[in-house]
Amino acid sequence: MAVYTDVSYEELEGFLARYDAGAPLTFKGIAEGVENSNYYLKTTGGAFVLTLYEKRVRADDLPFFLGLLEHLAGKGLPCPTPVRDRAGATHGELNGRPAALLRFLEGISLARPKAAHCAAAARALAELHRAGADFASQRPNALGPSAWRGLAAACAKDADAVEPGLNELIARETESLARNPPRGLPEGIIHGDLFPDNVLFQGERVSGLIDFYFACNDALAYDLAVMLNAWCFESDGTYNMTKGRSLLAAYDGARKLSPAERAALPALSRGAALRFLLTRLYDWINRDANALVRPKDPREFARKLRFHQTAKSAMDYGL
Amino acid sequence: MAVYTDVSYEELEGFLARYDAGAPLTFKGIAEGVENSNYYLKTTGGAFVLTLYEKRVRADDLPFFLGLLEHLAGKGLPCPTPVRDRAGATHGELNGRPAALLRFLEGISLARPKAAHCAAAARALAELHRAGADFASQRPNALGPSAWRGLAAACAKDADAVEPGLNELIARETESLARNPPRGLPEGIIHGDLFPDNVLFQGERVSGLIDFYFACNDALAYDLAVMLNAWCFESDGTYNMTKGRSLLAAYDGARKLSPAERAALPALSRGAALRFLLTRLYDWINRDANALVRPKDPREFARKLRFHQTAKSAMDYGL
Repeated sequence: MAVYTDVSYEELEGFLARYDAGAPLTFKGIAEGVENSNYYLKTTGGAFVLTLYEKRVRADDLPFFLGLLEHLAGKGLPCPTPVRDRAGATHGELNGRPAALLRFLEGISLARPKAAHCAAAARALAELHRAGADFASQRPNALGPSAWRGLAAACAKDADAVEPGLNELIARETESLARNPPRGLPEGIIHGDLFPDNVLFQGERVSGLIDFYFACNDALAYDLAVMLNAWCFESDGTYNMTKGRSLLAAYDGARKLSPAERAALPALSRGAALRFLLTRLYDWINRDANALVRPKDPREFARKLRFHQTAKSAMDYGL
Repeated sequence: MAVYTDVSYEELEGFLARYDAGAPLTFKGIAEGVENSNYYLKTTGGAFVLTLYEKRVRADDLPFFLGLLEHLAGKGLPCPTPVRDRAGATHGELNGRPAALLRFLEGISLARPKAAHCAAAARALAELHRAGADFASQRPNALGPSAWRGLAAACAKDADAVEPGLNELIARETESLARNPPRGLPEGIIHGDLFPDNVLFQGERVSGLIDFYFACNDALAYDLAVMLNAWCFESDGTYNMTKGRSLLAAYDGARKLSPAERAALPALSRGAALRFLLTRLYDWINRDANALVRPKDPREFARKLRFHQTAKSAMDYGL
């Protein structure tokens, strides 16, 4: 995590001239989120994040992402609200990048959330799913099943060098999920990347959901499967049943899972593990010597995928 | 600028247990300073910077740096104050790195300071020099003239590939400064790296002097020569006489320059240009593919050095 595009104070001043956001007091690059450049900005008018969207976020998608944040915040969800400029625009351009100003949310993300945090975050996810139901825009999941085959092919020749047997694990799972995709699942707006670093807490209360730049339309329960992968495993690769139970019960309490969603939980969890395995593997293999981020170890998700392959039903996750 | 050592919230909690610093509200990695890892921490007790010292800062030097900050802040200088833990220590250890908690200073650093900013920063430097006069500890300048020959030798074979003629420029200047070092100059505590990114402003008022990790004992006027290099050149390499006049007059108004210091200004400016040329060139040649910072272009200081070679007296800088 790093700052990719430098923004000087003078450049910031030019950008802020279009806003009624107060006079700057502090302006610092922060290490946060996917591959965007983020700055913490405190002004006489409050605290903000200035985000410059780098190559991974398409400018075409910004009206969807920023419109969604505005929609969700309007429904009381604790997500960053885009600040509109005097002309009403949610984003502009700064140093050749699309850029937006968002309200800063206080709170702390946890590396080792406890069961109570899993529950609070899962409840917030269910609220996100409900609040997104009447959002008008749509965006397909660019990292959904249709992308997996291409990523698997792109990684095929180097996968076994990362971990022996990885290529076959990926090929089998990709084919298996393509042959028997879960069907009949309620769809809607999903966050798509609700890892612990994207949830801010104050004590055990969720004070922020951030980094919506993988949000899209897909099966709602897939988002829950991402959370099972991201929140309920220990660093030694074992599944923590206490956390799983807590997370699933909290979600189900806030948004009742359908029988089809329950039945699909193992397949969705395999799909979510495969998605993060593939994107991490791709970034691992194609690492850029000039990159300012260290790629994350893909093998973590190979271990998780193997766990999911042993799961027969939602009961194996504690539901 | 990036975060090198990750600190989770849980690790932070463990570290903070030794302090009376309040309960954390926000904790973010920030892109700042030399090669250290820095975090912005807001608690119920105020705003802080948590710094983890990476390889470029020797743990042995921390008592000097942190003691100096405490000394200067005690004299009213706007520099970050180290927070002592309950046992009275100014630093501890976190994730295998020496680590310190410092009060956060508001303010904004400028990429293109105007003449008034140059004057305010130079006055602050003079105040720093006066306030440092009775600081008890000493630290030699690890990047002073005695280091230049070694750096020049280490870069000799690759310098001309960076810019034709660079090796000879460096060799001649290194020898020339070694033969005729400026003598009889008042010495004391210097900042050593007072570039615009290390000075925080609120309007035209200096609200912070930061990043003291090159501070040492050396000729006070050398610090002023560093500022001439860092504050008074345009991006096209030309010297801005208006800024130079403003900066020198403000310093001289706050701490009278001696005749020897005035006479030495061209040589000190060549020395300062050579120091930054050499360290940038070394980092440029020896860049680490895994580094999280982009090395800065050394050629900027070759241009500045050539300008200084044409200067005959302090008058050529506007004094």
